Amino acid sequence: MNQNTNIYELVIVGGGPAGMSAGVYAARKKLKTLLLAKNLGGQPSEAWQIDNYLGLPAVLGIELAEKFKSHLKKFSQDIEIKEGEIVVEIKKTEQAENNLPLFNVYTEKEKFPAKALIIATGVSPKKLGIPGEEKFTNRGVVFCATCDAPLFKDKIVAVVGSGNAGLDAAIQLTSYAKKIYLLNKYPDLHKGDLSYVEKIEKSPLIGILNNALPKEIKGDKFVKSLVWENVKTKETQEIEVEGVFVEIGSAPSLHFAKQLLKYNEKNEIIINPETNATSCPGIFAAGDVTNMPYKQIIISAGEGAKAALSAYYYLTKT
Amino acid sequence: MNQNTNIYELVIVGGGPAGMSAGVYAARKKLKTLLLAKNLGGQPSEAWQIDNYLGLPAVLGIELAEKFKSHLKKFSQDIEIKEGEIVVEIKKTEQAENNLPLFNVYTEKEKFPAKALIIATGVSPKKLGIPGEEKFTNRGVVFCATCDAPLFKDKIVAVVGSGNAGLDAAIQLTSYAKKIYLLNKYPDLHKGDLSYVEKIEKSPLIGILNNALPKEIKGDKFVKSLVWENVKTKETQEIEVEGVFVEIGSAPSLHFAKQLLKYNEKNEIIINPETNATSCPGIFAAGDVTNMPYKQIIISAGEGAKAALSAYYYLTKT
Repeated sequence: MNQNTNIYELVIVGGGPAGMSAGVYAARKKLKTLLLAKNLGGQPSEAWQIDNYLGLPAVLGIELAEKFKSHLKKFSQDIEIKEGEIVVEIKKTEQAENNLPLFNVYTEKEKFPAKALIIATGVSPKKLGIPGEEKFTNRGVVFCATCDAPLFKDKIVAVVGSGNAGLDAAIQLTSYAKKIYLLNKYPDLHKGDLSYVEKIEKSPLIGILNNALPKEIKGDKFVKSLVWENVKTKETQEIEVEGVFVEIGSAPSLHFAKQLLKYNEKNEIIINPETNATSCPGIFAAGDVTNMPYKQIIISAGEGAKAALSAYYYLTKT
Repeated sequence: MNQNTNIYELVIVGGGPAGMSAGVYAARKKLKTLLLAKNLGGQPSEAWQIDNYLGLPAVLGIELAEKFKSHLKKFSQDIEIKEGEIVVEIKKTEQAENNLPLFNVYTEKEKFPAKALIIATGVSPKKLGIPGEEKFTNRGVVFCATCDAPLFKDKIVAVVGSGNAGLDAAIQLTSYAKKIYLLNKYPDLHKGDLSYVEKIEKSPLIGILNNALPKEIKGDKFVKSLVWENVKTKETQEIEVEGVFVEIGSAPSLHFAKQLLKYNEKNEIIINPETNATSCPGIFAAGDVTNMPYKQIIISAGEGAKAALSAYYYLTKT
């Protein structure tokens, strides 16, 4: 293991919108900053078309991710970026500099000492794990109703998931789709808020399929149908759909700072929503990995800026 | 006064980044929405060059404002936009619809009933409050470097304020003025970004006056000089200038909802920072008008999105 004896003022972990926006702000503040990312781009690069990032209407996800990356890289004189890095552990050392604690960030290959950290590692939507899901991702299979519902105007779609996320997706889709199947793996809708359930039951556009387990997504270039099994009768059916909204939750993936930070019941990092400070002084967090309720690109970009400004004031006001 | 008997689900007050981002989100959620703005664009249209809005590097303020406007106007089928409207009062009525209180938004011309509101009216520049300031406003005393710097070609000017706004103004003026005095009330330049400070210190055109408090602006038809006091030595000096750029921050200007909402000591609307809810159910707020600590375009855009999503859930979860 290489030992990096340079001490960074700030290490940003994560290369999605929150991490990149934090990087832009940190670079402009001339903090000695390192950004570690598995890959730059984050969730936008996995989205289809994005129409709610103010100033960049109707942009492809991959294109938006490229714009973010090239913006960040404009500051490459002021920020060091290492891609292909997976952080495996963060430790608080016994040392301090100017009364600030010193952290060590361990990747699989190296150790990076830092005075402050921003964690912006995002979340991954849970996958169905059925044939066709991967093949048709962004070819009809989507994971974000707020982002993608408007693309399915006058189409027939299926929503998988009957928690609040699934019910919310189905309700949102009533403004666009001509028919929505809601696949619920339980005998009735009991998992979501009653107000949602009432709306779902009233809507002439939504067909509730109870005891329904998705088995396969079929199509040619795009999704054409969804095969599901009735878990009680074991019968399978195939329904014609052009879209499948997978809404079975998402999970932050962080094992590397478990002992340092406080988490909520969803495993999200609890932050001070004004300053993005975590429960550990010197560590900030931003974006989907936190307990902020709405997971959106424009919101994450703002949160990253907030976290970087807070880190800047933490580092300089001492 | 016209009586508009249409009830809006959402009225957004303000046409800056927060209001426009809220508008994009509300339109996509198909809320029956009205956006009222004095003028669309907001503070970006008064800024020079903006380099920290992720995805749009090194964009002119006026250009960024145009991109925001055209993005919002893409949704003109789903959102009604009225420019040239100044809101003078917001009242909560005794009526209710589906258990939600109903508000009336009064402009100088009309009344608009609404079930939910987002206030995103931003801030106005702070004044010095010294003799001559009012008399010479727009006769040498100006509040927007971007707008007015070009008017001072080959002239001697003073910039009052040493936060980022002041430093930014001084740097902008180096392209026009022949000499710029920067009045800094502190012993050194510590309030702004280091990258700005470095530029200021390197510029042969900028003279930094530390411990300097402006006392009076003098002139005949136009500004001729500025009197300032050294706060340490109590000596006063008079410098010949033809322009005074006031860059000491800004304050929210809202009288129209005083009795409905809670404010902090800076006169900012206190919000729940996770949901943008104000103290009055049904009224949300976003951007520089709120008590969120950092005033930045990308943050305001995120905040507008949050407020719109909260308004959507407020309206639909009943």
